[in-house]
Amino acid sequence: MTPASDNAITLTRKDLLGLKDLSRDEINLVLDTAESFKEISTRTIKKVPTLRGTTVINLFYEASTRTRTSFEIAAKRLSADTVNISASTSSVVKGETLVDTAKTLEAMNPDIIVIRHSCAGAPHILARLVSQSIINAGDGFHEHPTQALLDLLTIRQRKGGIEGLKVVIVGDIQHSRVARSNVYGMTTMGARVTLCGPAILIPRSVEQMGVTVETDMKKAVRGADVVMMLRMQFERQRSIVFPSIREYSQLFCLTGDTLELAKKDAIVMHPGPINRGTEIAPEVADGPRSVILDQVSNGVAVRMALLYLLAGGRQ
Amino acid sequence: MTPASDNAITLTRKDLLGLKDLSRDEINLVLDTAESFKEISTRTIKKVPTLRGTTVINLFYEASTRTRTSFEIAAKRLSADTVNISASTSSVVKGETLVDTAKTLEAMNPDIIVIRHSCAGAPHILARLVSQSIINAGDGFHEHPTQALLDLLTIRQRKGGIEGLKVVIVGDIQHSRVARSNVYGMTTMGARVTLCGPAILIPRSVEQMGVTVETDMKKAVRGADVVMMLRMQFERQRSIVFPSIREYSQLFCLTGDTLELAKKDAIVMHPGPINRGTEIAPEVADGPRSVILDQVSNGVAVRMALLYLLAGGRQ
Amino acid sequence: MTPASDNAITLTRKDLLGLKDLSRDEINLVLDTAESFKEISTRTIKKVPTLRGTTVINLFYEASTRTRTSFEIAAKRLSADTVNISASTSSVVKGETLVDTAKTLEAMNPDIIVIRHSCAGAPHILARLVSQSIINAGDGFHEHPTQALLDLLTIRQRKGGIEGLKVVIVGDIQHSRVARSNVYGMTTMGARVTLCGPAILIPRSVEQMGVTVETDMKKAVRGADVVMMLRMQFERQRSIVFPSIREYSQLFCLTGDTLELAKKDAIVMHPGPINRGTEIAPEVADGPRSVILDQVSNGVAVRMALLYLLAGGRQ
Repeated sequence: MTPASDNAITLTRKDLLGLKDLSRDEINLVLDTAESFKEISTRTIKKVPTLRGTTVINLFYEASTRTRTSFEIAAKRLSADTVNISASTSSVVKGETLVDTAKTLEAMNPDIIVIRHSCAGAPHILARLVSQSIINAGDGFHEHPTQALLDLLTIRQRKGGIEGLKVVIVGDIQHSRVARSNVYGMTTMGARVTLCGPAILIPRSVEQMGVTVETDMKKAVRGADVVMMLRMQFERQRSIVFPSIREYSQLFCLTGDTLELAKKDAIVMHPGPINRGTEIAPEVADGPRSVILDQVSNGVAVRMALLYLLAGGRQ
Repeated sequence: MTPASDNAITLTRKDLLGLKDLSRDEINLVLDTAESFKEISTRTIKKVPTLRGTTVINLFYEASTRTRTSFEIAAKRLSADTVNISASTSSVVKGETLVDTAKTLEAMNPDIIVIRHSCAGAPHILARLVSQSIINAGDGFHEHPTQALLDLLTIRQRKGGIEGLKVVIVGDIQHSRVARSNVYGMTTMGARVTLCGPAILIPRSVEQMGVTVETDMKKAVRGADVVMMLRMQFERQRSIVFPSIREYSQLFCLTGDTLELAKKDAIVMHPGPINRGTEIAPEVADGPRSVILDQVSNGVAVRMALLYLLAGGRQ
Repeated sequence: MTPASDNAITLTRKDLLGLKDLSRDEINLVLDTAESFKEISTRTIKKVPTLRGTTVINLFYEASTRTRTSFEIAAKRLSADTVNISASTSSVVKGETLVDTAKTLEAMNPDIIVIRHSCAGAPHILARLVSQSIINAGDGFHEHPTQALLDLLTIRQRKGGIEGLKVVIVGDIQHSRVARSNVYGMTTMGARVTLCGPAILIPRSVEQMGVTVETDMKKAVRGADVVMMLRMQFERQRSIVFPSIREYSQLFCLTGDTLELAKKDAIVMHPGPINRGTEIAPEVADGPRSVILDQVSNGVAVRMALLYLLAGGRQ
């Protein structure tokens, strides 16, 4: 019996595509369910029969360790069967369209398709085309909703709630699907969000999303409850958009000194993998305020919750 | 309990290497068994314990999404354990011979090895060398028997039978293992097969296989019950064997107009992945006569049936 | 119930990093446990529930078929869940350090991490950092302990014991983790080990490890109970360290004639994959004295034993 099996709670939506249109109640449902699943991963026998006979396809068009592994472990701990498809070994090399791949997979009757794709909107196309549940595991510069949900869970655990907190997100906001999903989720949950980074890496008119922009990192961090550093996505940047990594780090790397400006009990987050010394100093990443590894653990729990809820809360 | 568990039916052969030497009774056994397994994939719990404790190795020397995924899902729905080996991460890079790889895998006591290889005859070499059951998942330009079996199942479902039907196969016959296996299977089941394509892409003396050759597509399609389009295998062709893709498409792409020449209730098939606009017009691929996605669904069922039957019809 | 489930035997160490510091009692425990597990792989239902709910991560930074497949099959036959991570699809491409990858995986609560890495000592770093059990599946030119354990098991099966046997190991000793682990294991178990190869490929002062060095292969093989040939690791050699493959083979390839110099009942071993004609003649590799495939079968059993013992002998 699963911890959540007493209630017949379920998401009424078919897919999880982003946090933009997820309500506060829905987010709380996911977080509560994840909380109830956390304990399974600490047992000796880390497995419940909840999703036995369910097929989960991990369709990854971009390289990934942590997200794919997290979904795979989440599915297996619920006794689902998992099938991994990565772009390098797939029909992608034969030039099949995403649409045809989707319809083909649908015809094999999986229950849930987890997709990561370099094009924004790819999961939405899938969701319209196929009858199965689609989970967005990251689409281009658009959204990465499971990351934001695990971030919200981590904050809630450490702070007892999210409402009213000052959350600062620092880095390449423009190209970050993590930042975008977190802005949606955090503002929905009532946090006050400040975005910080080089002006050129902050989208125009982003204030319309209900956030504050601050290009001076010291000012941004002052009084923060949560400091979330973004990964510098060197592998995705086609050209150097700021003078140098060295100059970037001097201005936006989270050091112990800068962290002193935040609240005494502020926590430090990072979606990983981290570039030590570029966006975060090693002593901060490994320090007592860092909750980076909690984020990873919560990732498995959040994904278990989503697989469970999208499969209809089946027991 | 599996749908087929009442009967002790089984294939008496150890391997499935091709349709060339499969009898009508054997084909019917596979199709009947697949039919009985189809329903499992539509359940909420898509899994039966039939092959629990069985190890299935998918040994793929060519990239593949649909076939490998189909075998993997089929095995998992029967509760078998699956291990995937692809050429890019295998000892192949260390220069080990196929023979030594086969003997090594045999020593790990799998039950069934599914192999795809770019060399015709590779599965046959394995089958002679190892005691386990070998399933040919495509060998060079030779055979692709599970594809032909799922095609036969699809035709039987739609037409009520195969005997006496006019089946037209259109495309690069010369280099198509799908065509070859289907010719064997269709003629064994009593269909009248017409092969159609540019003369240079049709093997000489192919009429000896009991088929008709017709290089004019309109004539070929006239009166057909089944029109099976082949994929243009751009990735396998070492040189352009016909003037241009454009010219090929003008002559051999299945359009709505051409399809009008077939019987009113003719069905359209394609093994996938499709090249839209090259060998098949989008409106035909997505149209009401297309059974392309039925083929995919039947692929899982046929592979479940073969894994089950080759494992000895074990319950 | 597993064959070993009556006893509460277990290794008291957390990790298996090498054979250097494994005692004779510990080695015997692993071999006895492996012996008791061997039978499972010969059943119709090749699976016991021993490690149900356990997560095993195969973290491979080097290409591998046999070792990864062997671990994966071993884990699945004990009902553990397995997750494969290979360097080519991992965060390695994003520049994450091994330390951060390790901490990230730890946070997902696996039970055992199996690691292969091109750097000697990588498994030891992991073992110090994470709370889970680490199994070294080969680290650089350092150790490959599971290979040596399966070699010991094979010798014990064929010879009734290891003590006092003359074991000759032939090849590129300098760069062989298989040789190093075997020297530790064989000497601990009381065998007399002779290392043989071109002088330039034998480490200096190796006699301090309690072995004999002999560069003349005929002298080395004379009177041997066990002749273990090493694989020429062409893919790892950065420069040609001996004049030519042809010259190497003339001196160090194990032919039927050379084997005649060993004891009448001597056995021939090779970790695979073999280079036929380079280090071993085909008629010897495939001959009656070859136990190469026994080694492969024993590999699954030894890895089952280690997964079982490191998981705490859990029933």
